[in-house]
Amino acid sequence: MPSEALDQLVRQLARLPGLGPRSARRAALHLLKKPEAHLRPLAEALSRVAREVVACGICGNLDTQSPCGICRDGQRDGRSICVVEEVDDLWAMERGRSFRGRYHVLGGTLRAIDGITPESLRIPDLVRRIETADPRIEEVILALGVTVDGQTTAHYLAERLAPLGVTVTRLGHGVPLGGQLGYLDDGTIDAALRSRRPLG
Amino acid sequence: MPSEALDQLVRQLARLPGLGPRSARRAALHLLKKPEAHLRPLAEALSRVAREVVACGICGNLDTQSPCGICRDGQRDGRSICVVEEVDDLWAMERGRSFRGRYHVLGGTLRAIDGITPESLRIPDLVRRIETADPRIEEVILALGVTVDGQTTAHYLAERLAPLGVTVTRLGHGVPLGGQLGYLDDGTIDAALRSRRPLG
Repeated sequence: MPSEALDQLVRQLARLPGLGPRSARRAALHLLKKPEAHLRPLAEALSRVAREVVACGICGNLDTQSPCGICRDGQRDGRSICVVEEVDDLWAMERGRSFRGRYHVLGGTLRAIDGITPESLRIPDLVRRIETADPRIEEVILALGVTVDGQTTAHYLAERLAPLGVTVTRLGHGVPLGGQLGYLDDGTIDAALRSRRPLG
Repeated sequence: MPSEALDQLVRQLARLPGLGPRSARRAALHLLKKPEAHLRPLAEALSRVAREVVACGICGNLDTQSPCGICRDGQRDGRSICVVEEVDDLWAMERGRSFRGRYHVLGGTLRAIDGITPESLRIPDLVRRIETADPRIEEVILALGVTVDGQTTAHYLAERLAPLGVTVTRLGHGVPLGGQLGYLDDGTIDAALRSRRPLG
């Protein structure tokens, strides 16, 4: 690498999820090939986000203000809270447009081996929120990944929230829309079979 | 997306080679999760590169000065020029440590269908450089990709440079080191067979 500045940019880009050392190098060169069209707009977008975007103090969503638009929206049903791993999952739920309650972003999943404990996630905040919310929170929907870590976290939360008098549910598992059976793993097929429903 | 600033950051990240819309979203959230540790260093690395790094006016390499370190290095052999598509390829050649001449970065390959003509690459500069260089350039090594576009460009250059009195060569084709025959395409095996050499 000819200059330390460039080397540093490549190292920063390589830390992004989805980019390795080789693709970070390609990305850096892409940016430098047309600095005005590529590098500068990215630098400006980063500064603007750093200035404007904050995490919501209630749910952990990202927005230009805290509490976020969803937490401040009086039309949303405060009695139902959907727990997600990351903000990205919240956006996916919102794109679905069928949930009209509020959210709680954990910031990850429990993983003892990496030292990720309930306290390093936003789980204590969730407990406090349920204990103090007005109106009362009646249902907590766990919309966590169907992965080992996601399900470990779901079971932990179900136990931890049980004494608080809320109903804890999880999203249904099954064949995704557009999914073809031939491409599905056995676990999904099994889950879909067990959650089968009468037709018509 | 909750804020326009964030939306813009995702759009800028999605323009990087190797990132699509979904991975750009994940990358933006990764940056925002720890702004001090992730977002700010990237923003600073970008500004620094924009300030410090320039394209070499002679060969097109990226460096903190123009002419670049390689073009100014009196130890390098100015009679031999290696033509590469991108700066990334120049770095790869340098990592190999076996070439001690100078470079010429084309900035891509010819592709009429996308409107990439000799004039939109650094081909006129290459011709001028060969015509005016002192000491005389004796050999031009075409180190272009073994792709349709790379080879089209190589043939175009061979014709265009022929009247200038330089020897035009290309890198050898064959089995890469560590390459296993079972994973190679027929064309490579054919090339390797044709360039076979006596052993020992």
